[in-house]
Amino acid sequence: MAHDEFSLIRQWTSRSDGQEGDGLTVGIGDDAAVFAPSPAMEVVACCDAMVETVHFLKETMRPSDIGYKAVISNISDVAAMGGLPRYALVSIAVSPGWSADETSEIYEGIYAACDAYGVRLIGGDTVSAPDALHLSVTVLGEVEQGRALRRSHAKPGQAVFVTGHVGSSAAGLHLLLKQKDPNSRFPAELQPLVEAHQRPAAQVTAGRLLLASRSCGALNDVSDGLASELWEIAEASGVAIAIDADQVPIRAEVSSYAAEAGKDPLDWAFYGGEDYQLVGTAEADGVAALAEQFAAAGIPFAVIGSVEASADGKPAVTCARAGRSMPLAKAGFNHFGRRE
Amino acid sequence: MAHDEFSLIRQWTSRSDGQEGDGLTVGIGDDAAVFAPSPAMEVVACCDAMVETVHFLKETMRPSDIGYKAVISNISDVAAMGGLPRYALVSIAVSPGWSADETSEIYEGIYAACDAYGVRLIGGDTVSAPDALHLSVTVLGEVEQGRALRRSHAKPGQAVFVTGHVGSSAAGLHLLLKQKDPNSRFPAELQPLVEAHQRPAAQVTAGRLLLASRSCGALNDVSDGLASELWEIAEASGVAIAIDADQVPIRAEVSSYAAEAGKDPLDWAFYGGEDYQLVGTAEADGVAALAEQFAAAGIPFAVIGSVEASADGKPAVTCARAGRSMPLAKAGFNHFGRRE
Repeated sequence: MAHDEFSLIRQWTSRSDGQEGDGLTVGIGDDAAVFAPSPAMEVVACCDAMVETVHFLKETMRPSDIGYKAVISNISDVAAMGGLPRYALVSIAVSPGWSADETSEIYEGIYAACDAYGVRLIGGDTVSAPDALHLSVTVLGEVEQGRALRRSHAKPGQAVFVTGHVGSSAAGLHLLLKQKDPNSRFPAELQPLVEAHQRPAAQVTAGRLLLASRSCGALNDVSDGLASELWEIAEASGVAIAIDADQVPIRAEVSSYAAEAGKDPLDWAFYGGEDYQLVGTAEADGVAALAEQFAAAGIPFAVIGSVEASADGKPAVTCARAGRSMPLAKAGFNHFGRRE
Repeated sequence: MAHDEFSLIRQWTSRSDGQEGDGLTVGIGDDAAVFAPSPAMEVVACCDAMVETVHFLKETMRPSDIGYKAVISNISDVAAMGGLPRYALVSIAVSPGWSADETSEIYEGIYAACDAYGVRLIGGDTVSAPDALHLSVTVLGEVEQGRALRRSHAKPGQAVFVTGHVGSSAAGLHLLLKQKDPNSRFPAELQPLVEAHQRPAAQVTAGRLLLASRSCGALNDVSDGLASELWEIAEASGVAIAIDADQVPIRAEVSSYAAEAGKDPLDWAFYGGEDYQLVGTAEADGVAALAEQFAAAGIPFAVIGSVEASADGKPAVTCARAGRSMPLAKAGFNHFGRRE
């Protein structure tokens, strides 16, 4: 940042001025922010980075989408603990290819995501970068003492579920990469896929429902693709997970677009990532009640498999498709051809 | 990161495994970390980014120094609130110019700084970057309820003080930029200046003393140079600050090296930055007791000026030198010729 751009930074973050109160003692503008944790709650803390050319391209994401999604990916991590997001700190490194207007739009996206989830921006850092734009977001939330939902709590006999739909973000990215313009308009039935990629939602309500149910075992968010998240649960819990491919919830629009594009929609679901849905396990005798609660809340909830004891002491994830069960490869999110 | 480097990341952060306990419910390795705040304490949160070529060069900082300093700059922000640092989250974006060994050394520096200040690394993100290495660190600490020390609490009649010495880091950088080798050995009397730049200390003990004294008004840390920090206090508090140049604590080695290099050591003190000392204001009738407490703790403490009422309603910072009082320019840290 040039020294005379300090006033711009002040302008970008001025929405956070005078927001003290409701637990926030010191907001943005001092050396650090200070807040009072809610009684009987623990603090949940996570941090995710998004880097131009690695995690996003100007050709597929508008500046406001970039800010929005960087916040959402962290809120999603808090949701995956069953927590409530409260505060965000944003560190942004802006390279010469980004105008002041574009940077201002990134902040607009950051604030839009914060507003949508009741999160307050309480601090951060704005610096210059030589080449690619970098965004690193920390979100702080809270969760009832000792109740955070862990990756490691899957047990044999539990059902495996996922919220919402998976593979939509990867389908949206596929559409956007063909157009190379983040403002492209697509046919109405494809627009939701593009929105799933540019403006994903975080499953905070689902996470709170799961925590309150007391029947949730392990929980993870789908940031790197369903396969990678299932493997994380299997490894952290020391169990085997068996998935039924036919039960994986994929939007009809994703399947039909995949057919047209010559792609397998399950590849997008398993290896696409950035769906920010929740995948987890639940007690077999509690899963029907959970499904009812999700239906009442209007959140899709699908049972996609089950947890089994690890046969040889090794974690495993298998997927049954067309009558054959195969090990599910562990690959993670493939960003523009790089393995992340 | 290539997919096969996941194991390296695990290795780099394995020091944080199994560190749960003493308030930490969930450490590194899940979607988010979870900790229980201490009773009657508020949470202090800050976030600072360091970018290759903007904030550091390979020619002046060893990889471990980079990690160390990125953590220190955040611990320093917590110290400037009078707080105790507790936890860190580190987001690191590694570009192709950095080997796995160098990245591992960055983590060693991160852990060394954490260890030195009783901070636990509880989360973060390791991603790839196309060009420059980026480090973004969040430090979470705690402070007694309602007691955080603010920039805005300077009042006319208070004394202005600074801890330790200022200008040493800029002198060290000047030395290092001549050699272009971070492992260079310098004459014994200059080595502390190089260390002040590569391995600065954060003034946590000083911050805690100041908070406990109840006579501290405003407080700031010297990250961007004394002039910029004094201006921040003057503006946040709506006061005028008058500094006596002769009282600004500069090491004799800095002054003699500056003379040799044809530089003004006060320029380094006012505009160099990264000294991570604390600058603040204290009640006039409490400052003698404070000085005694600092002497007892072995921490240099210098009264360098006083707070006055703003004459025309505008904040001001003036500096008296050789019998003349001049406005002190507001410029901040000059990173390698860029204005930050």
